[in-house]
Amino acid sequence: MAEFALIRQVAQRVVARPDVVLGIGDDAALLHPVAGMQLAIATDTLNAGVHFPPETAPGDIGWKALAVNLSDLAAMGALPAWASVALSLPDADAAWVEAFMQGFDALAVPAQLALIGGDTTRGPLSVTVSVVGYVEPGTALRRDGAQAGDDVWVSGVPGEAAAALALWQAGKARDAALQQRLDRPVPRNALGRALRGLAHACIDVSDGLWADLQNVCTASGLGACLQLDALPVSPALRATCADDAQRLVWQCSGGDDYELCFTAAPAQRTALQALARKLEVPLTCIGYMQPGTAVEGYLGGRRWQPPRSGYQHFAG
Amino acid sequence: MAEFALIRQVAQRVVARPDVVLGIGDDAALLHPVAGMQLAIATDTLNAGVHFPPETAPGDIGWKALAVNLSDLAAMGALPAWASVALSLPDADAAWVEAFMQGFDALAVPAQLALIGGDTTRGPLSVTVSVVGYVEPGTALRRDGAQAGDDVWVSGVPGEAAAALALWQAGKARDAALQQRLDRPVPRNALGRALRGLAHACIDVSDGLWADLQNVCTASGLGACLQLDALPVSPALRATCADDAQRLVWQCSGGDDYELCFTAAPAQRTALQALARKLEVPLTCIGYMQPGTAVEGYLGGRRWQPPRSGYQHFAG
Repeated sequence: MAEFALIRQVAQRVVARPDVVLGIGDDAALLHPVAGMQLAIATDTLNAGVHFPPETAPGDIGWKALAVNLSDLAAMGALPAWASVALSLPDADAAWVEAFMQGFDALAVPAQLALIGGDTTRGPLSVTVSVVGYVEPGTALRRDGAQAGDDVWVSGVPGEAAAALALWQAGKARDAALQQRLDRPVPRNALGRALRGLAHACIDVSDGLWADLQNVCTASGLGACLQLDALPVSPALRATCADDAQRLVWQCSGGDDYELCFTAAPAQRTALQALARKLEVPLTCIGYMQPGTAVEGYLGGRRWQPPRSGYQHFAG
Repeated sequence: MAEFALIRQVAQRVVARPDVVLGIGDDAALLHPVAGMQLAIATDTLNAGVHFPPETAPGDIGWKALAVNLSDLAAMGALPAWASVALSLPDADAAWVEAFMQGFDALAVPAQLALIGGDTTRGPLSVTVSVVGYVEPGTALRRDGAQAGDDVWVSGVPGEAAAALALWQAGKARDAALQQRLDRPVPRNALGRALRGLAHACIDVSDGLWADLQNVCTASGLGACLQLDALPVSPALRATCADDAQRLVWQCSGGDDYELCFTAAPAQRTALQALARKLEVPLTCIGYMQPGTAVEGYLGGRRWQPPRSGYQHFAG
């Protein structure tokens, strides 16, 4: 099976959009962006053995490769529009590509995201997805907009993906919902769109809550106080942990959560709680922004910090 | 060295453009596209050992990863604007990244191309570049616009990159100019822009002249006659070849040329010859489009076809 056949297999399943003039099949795709809108563009790579265990199901890889990119658009408050997929495979495996695309489509189709191009090559298993979304000028959620006195909020329950990964690596049985959080994270795109005008700064939690909040601090020229007693905990996460110390490490330093961490003025608390109910997404206030440069954690009134701040590629 | 340090190293060398609202450093880049223009988006991956020999200099990899993408924009007649780079490296090597970026910048800076984002990950050496360019609505050069009776043209001298690769693989000495065509191909962006309104269809020669012209045939619902006696030959290419049969195979089936193959009405011959002189790019008429479905070659009045039509990933 040649490259062109793989491309045709992928091209058959494209969401049609009026802003796509010419999709897969030429040297480049042609797009006609909606007038007056800004574009947000993000790119993320997943490599076998680094970002997912080699035995991960192809459908989960397809879902996740798109999910991590849609999460970046969510963190900007942008509406997903187009994606390209660069897929390197050790050998041309039509069944593998079919399963991969089923996982990809399960996220892309409901989001009305059009697959506009990419590349299929021979090489060690690796997926690079680029996504483009729309955002109204001046409304994008950036990392550098936090203000001293802002509340710090997080969506969902950070730490569940890290807990699932730890159990998987230890060969232990896993709660299905927990495993789903690792295999098929649901990007918070509706939340990100709704936070325009409410949040001052936003980031998605991909490298760990602590490290990602530190990125907001650095970009905004501020510090943050994390009230660790306020971290939301699910029964599944609690049942998995040996103790609270283990749980806190997963919640603060575990990667792959793809929740949103954002800051907002205290005057927005009622609006944010109403939003949480409307979208059925837990939103929890877990601290505040303050003068300084770093994230500080407090647990039971005492300073606490994780042994390492977050997941770093190349770290080991 | 952590991922963030590598990103900072890359972010320092960004071309400033008024349509880039926010570049590297947030969850996504923010762009404000020029009103009324369409966008062309292309993505290409280069994997070590597949698309370039593992011992290739990092600067050449940086150049080529961008060049192959700019060539796609050239083939659409689009003006390059933004690029993102997803770089997988076995280990974090600041000197390697520095050399890679020098090669990338050598093409990007003169093109006023802004690096707007990407990803750096740990994994087998692989580079995926996505580029975005502007094109005026209705003027893009597509594969499906060829008309029966059109001349078929090619820029430059196809086959030189294949000749350089063959010599390299055989461990033989290479002409420096020939080697440059493999290591640092110059994408034909000025030519592509100038062909708007002159050419009916266009493709870049990346998989081999024969295979790429076949793609134009298939997209346009036509056949093509290739007059192989008309193929342009350089002294360097002629000096490299054992015989004409070898040369023809390189010229018809060799990949990596990144020349443009395009079709145009015979009435445009004078204009195209003037364009060739103005841009100092050889343009050669090598055949014509005709009813049918396939590329046919003629050499000295007799049918000729290459043993294989072009480079195919996954082919073996």
